[in-house]
Order: sequence, then C-alpha cells, then structure tokens
Amino acid sequence: MSTVRAAFKVLISHPNVPAPALELLRSRGAETIVCQSVPPCREEILQKVPGVDAIFWAHYQALNAGILDAAGPQLRCVSTMSSGIDFVDVPEFKRRQIPLGHTPGVVKNSVADLAIGLMIAAGRHFHAGRNDIESSQWKTELIDWRMGQEIRDSVIGFFGFGGISQAIAKRLQCWDVAKVLYHTRSRKENEAEFKAEHVPFERLLRESDFLVVAAPLTDETRGKFDRKAFGLMKSNAVFVNVARGGLVIQSDLHEALTTGQIFAAGLDVTTPEPLPADDPLLKLPNCVILPHLGTQTMKTTIEMSLLAANNILNAMAGKPMIRPAY
Amino acid sequence: MSTVRAAFKVLISHPNVPAPALELLRSRGAETIVCQSVPPCREEILQKVPGVDAIFWAHYQALNAGILDAAGPQLRCVSTMSSGIDFVDVPEFKRRQIPLGHTPGVVKNSVADLAIGLMIAAGRHFHAGRNDIESSQWKTELIDWRMGQEIRDSVIGFFGFGGISQAIAKRLQCWDVAKVLYHTRSRKENEAEFKAEHVPFERLLRESDFLVVAAPLTDETRGKFDRKAFGLMKSNAVFVNVARGGLVIQSDLHEALTTGQIFAAGLDVTTPEPLPADDPLLKLPNCVILPHLGTQTMKTTIEMSLLAANNILNAMAGKPMIRPAY
Repeated sequence: MSTVRAAFKVLISHPNVPAPALELLRSRGAETIVCQSVPPCREEILQKVPGVDAIFWAHYQALNAGILDAAGPQLRCVSTMSSGIDFVDVPEFKRRQIPLGHTPGVVKNSVADLAIGLMIAAGRHFHAGRNDIESSQWKTELIDWRMGQEIRDSVIGFFGFGGISQAIAKRLQCWDVAKVLYHTRSRKENEAEFKAEHVPFERLLRESDFLVVAAPLTDETRGKFDRKAFGLMKSNAVFVNVARGGLVIQSDLHEALTTGQIFAAGLDVTTPEPLPADDPLLKLPNCVILPHLGTQTMKTTIEMSLLAANNILNAMAGKPMIRPAY
Repeated sequence: MSTVRAAFKVLISHPNVPAPALELLRSRGAETIVCQSVPPCREEILQKVPGVDAIFWAHYQALNAGILDAAGPQLRCVSTMSSGIDFVDVPEFKRRQIPLGHTPGVVKNSVADLAIGLMIAAGRHFHAGRNDIESSQWKTELIDWRMGQEIRDSVIGFFGFGGISQAIAKRLQCWDVAKVLYHTRSRKENEAEFKAEHVPFERLLRESDFLVVAAPLTDETRGKFDRKAFGLMKSNAVFVNVARGGLVIQSDLHEALTTGQIFAAGLDVTTPEPLPADDPLLKLPNCVILPHLGTQTMKTTIEMSLLAANNILNAMAGKPMIRPAY
C-alpha cells in the first residue's frame, strides 16, 4: 500500500497482557509500548508514558493525576483490564474529560465455575478429606464419616444478583435445586429467568443451604456478614465468598465455623490478601481457601484484554467505549 | 389392634445405618438386630445372624457361604447397601436361590456433584493455591499466575456413560460446553438427551478437555488409563476418576502430571485405599485427592438405606426386589 497508516501509541502497563489484545491493537495501527516490570513499577510507567495517545492499564496500582500529567495533553483515552475500578481516581478523569473504560461482565464465567467448585469443595470436605489422607486418618467402613451437603434439593441463596450470581444460577438450572433466593437493594427484572425470589437479608440467612456472596464492596456491604448474620444461618449452611473479603467479619466467620454455627465455608477472597500463612482460618478443617483465583483462566483473561483493547480502539475512532466506566 | 403382627427378624450389619431405614423395617413388623462393632466384626455377625429371616448388609466385607450357613435355612433374603457387589459371592446366592438385592442408581447424585467439584478443583488449582497460601507464595499482580481451565466451551469426555456420567452430563447442560463425548462398549439409546456422541477410546483421549472416568472395574477396564492413554491426551486436559482406582496405572498418571503431559487430575479413588500418607501423588501440586467421599452425603445414604430396606420388604412379601443383584 502506498499510504502510510497514521499510527497511535498505546502504553501497556504489564508485560503479560495476552497476545491477542496486543495483536488487535497493532493490527489497527497502534504502536504498543509495553512495560516490562513485574510487579509493575511506577517509575517505569512514568518514564514510558509521556506522549502516548492511550493507556492500557493492566494492573491495580493507583491510576490518577500523576499518571495523566506524565502522559501529557495528547492523551485521548484509558482503559483498565479489570471489572472493579476502586484504584482509579474517576473524578480526575471526569474533570479532564478523558474517556475511561473497564471490563465488567466478562469475568462472570470463570468466577461462576470457581464459586460452584467452592460450594462443592466446602460442602463435601475437600480440605478435611485431604488432611485425613495426609495424616493417615482416612476411615473406611464408617457409614457416616465426612458426610457432606448435596446441592440437589437445596436452597441456594445469593447476596448480590449481578452477572456473577446469575452465571452461577444459570449453571445450576439442571441441578434440581429446591429454590433460588437472592438479596439485593431492589428486585431484578430478569429474576424469573432463574426462578429466583427476592427476599429480605434476614430471610436469605435463615433459609439458605448454600449462601454465595457476589456483591461489590461498598460502605453498605462492608462487614455485612458478622456474628449476628452467621447466628441466623442454618447449621448445615455452606458459606461461599467470591466477592471481596471486606464483606465478612473474618473473626466472626472463624467462630461460626468453629462452633458449628454453620457447616463450612469456601473463600476465594480474604482480608488481607495475601492471607498470612498463620491465619487462624487456615487451621480449620471446614474452610476451603483460595488465593483469589476467580478470574484466573486464559479464556476469561483474553476476553478481558480484548474488551480493554476495543474500549481503546473505539475511543481512538471517536466512538463511545464499549464499557465506559463513567 | 387386636391381631398380633407376625414379626420377622432382620440382621443389620452396621450400627450407623440411617434411622429412616430401621424405622421403615420396624413399621412393617421387623425385629431389627443391629450389630454394634465399627468396623463391623465378623464374629459379632456370626453370633447374631442365626435364625434371622433377612440380612441388611451395610458394609463391604465378604458376604459368602459362611454367613449364609451361620444364618440357617430359614433365611429368605439379603440386600447390600451398596452399588458395587464385588464383595459378594453371587454364585453361592444363585445356587441356594436366595434373593440378593443392592442399591445402584441412587448413588449417582452425590457422586455427580463431587465429580464436578473435582473437575473445577483440579482445573482451577485448588490444591496448589492452598499450598501457595500456606507457604506464603501467593503472588499478586501476575496476570498469568495459576491460570486454570474453564468448563465453558470445553469438550467433556466420559469413560463409561451410566447413571453417574449421565447425572454429570445433566448438571452440565447449562454450562455452554462445546461437546459431550463418551466411550462405552455400545452406544446408549438415550445419548441424544445429553447431546452426547459415542466415540472410540482413542478419540475420547485425543479430544477431551475434561475426561471423567465413571465405569465399573472389570477385567476389561483394569489399568485402561496407562502411559499410552495419557500420552494421547491434551496438555490442557483435566483427568477425573470417581470410579475405582484400579482403572488407572497410578505411576503412569504420576508421570503424566509431572511432565505436563496432562494439566491436572482430581481423584476420589486410588490404589490402594486408604492411600498411604507418603504416596508420591500427594506431592503433586496439580493433583486433588479425596478419601473416597463420592457417596458421603446424608441424602444419598438415606436413599441407599431405604432402597435396601425396600428390597428386603419386597422379598419378605414374596415380591421381586426393587433392585435385584442377579
């Protein structure tokens, strides 16, 4: 071709952004400037960002005026590769009228799989059973040894009923569950699709056999699962948290698991993260804990990266972002 | 009532048979003689069995001529509380024409839940992730850390397509899987219900992203999963066994997991059981192992016990057992 394509520059804040996203950007004329530090290093970013047209922010460090100033006035747009944007100074973006995108929605599939894995792993003694093997305590010929909870005929309760909860409810549609309950501030229009019933918080606690937390951490939800909440739950209840550790008063959960107030817990999120190796929760046989692996599949990570890239490409073409953050 | 009901005696071989089964038998006029030893003790059984009309065999020790002789010629029927009956001398029952029942079918629900839990736990690094926390190796800010396998868009392969496999396939109907393949000796008439395709063993190995083993242990299936089989599988494959340890050459599985020939394994069954605490499989980060908990839910155990009781009640009433074993 005789025409030289007008290139634009995109800073990529992390070296492990999946290749398909970089290839997409390059195929549309972008020059990609990829930071190499792991974990990302602010100094490297500040050094490479001046003069770029767009920023692909693939990590969770503060994205604020300091970065925008360093980039310079030619900066036209930014997208994070994340659903949550609690690390972004959104008012600063608004003030400067710089389009900001993020990647909600696509994380739901990988988190939903993991949440159901936690329901089963916690409900069926995966951690205690492993300990039994490793300590030569595997009992045979005991009819009622390590009896667990089945999902069939159970009441499944959701705290929060957004994309992740709905992806879980969708997956459980052929499991013969007794009932699906959910608690949110307001009733969801599509609840009938999941035969789900909107209930007050207290009823959610009292009736759920499996209670899954998948709601944002806000001032309203912080510490919502405390001693009083666990005190209302069933003794056979399996508690699963794939949202944020801050929704739970962890010492109260520990107590509920120790006293038999509830049956078991499965946690992908904790306070703090990383959880220290000597945390008391790690001593409990009825608590399955993961190091925040909810979105850790290549399929979902590629989808997140492509969505972030398309946010940027839309903005560079003067169109609205696919998922604008404000 | 003025009539005295004609009682019959049932030996119960284990003290932890769920109460609903005992209550059912008693409500129909049975006197229940419950052995108290755990694990069951053959001497106690031989001492209590003489003169009974029926035997409710709730454990897995040899059920043979010795027991039948000790019971005496008035013995009218026996039911196990198990699906498999490899511990029963069936020819001896046939020779004496004593009705023998068992409890297949009802185990499928609890095993299916557990199998899907193993697919996710193995595919999403539940064991390695726990180790990371306990050894303070939880990495944050690494985009591609502990990347796992999603079920969505995957090819799910079943070795064996009986009740358990079908219960798993049913549960996965709303998970947007790419394809369901199965290998059995002959095509299943109801395969269309699960959009499942009957394939040769080699194709099952080559194409499955998740491969679930749920087939009886027979001379034909023993050691079926060996180095050659693992060698044909995909490097992202998650191998799950909820059948019997004997279908797998365990040292070959260990090699396949160590070399990266396959991605991960989830095992509810091993060779031997109990698995020794120093078994090399327990050293692998990508192997989730459980102490044979497939049927360990109260719901399924009660269903098994009620089916065994009803087998006996039918036979005592001169009717065919619900699930005769021969």
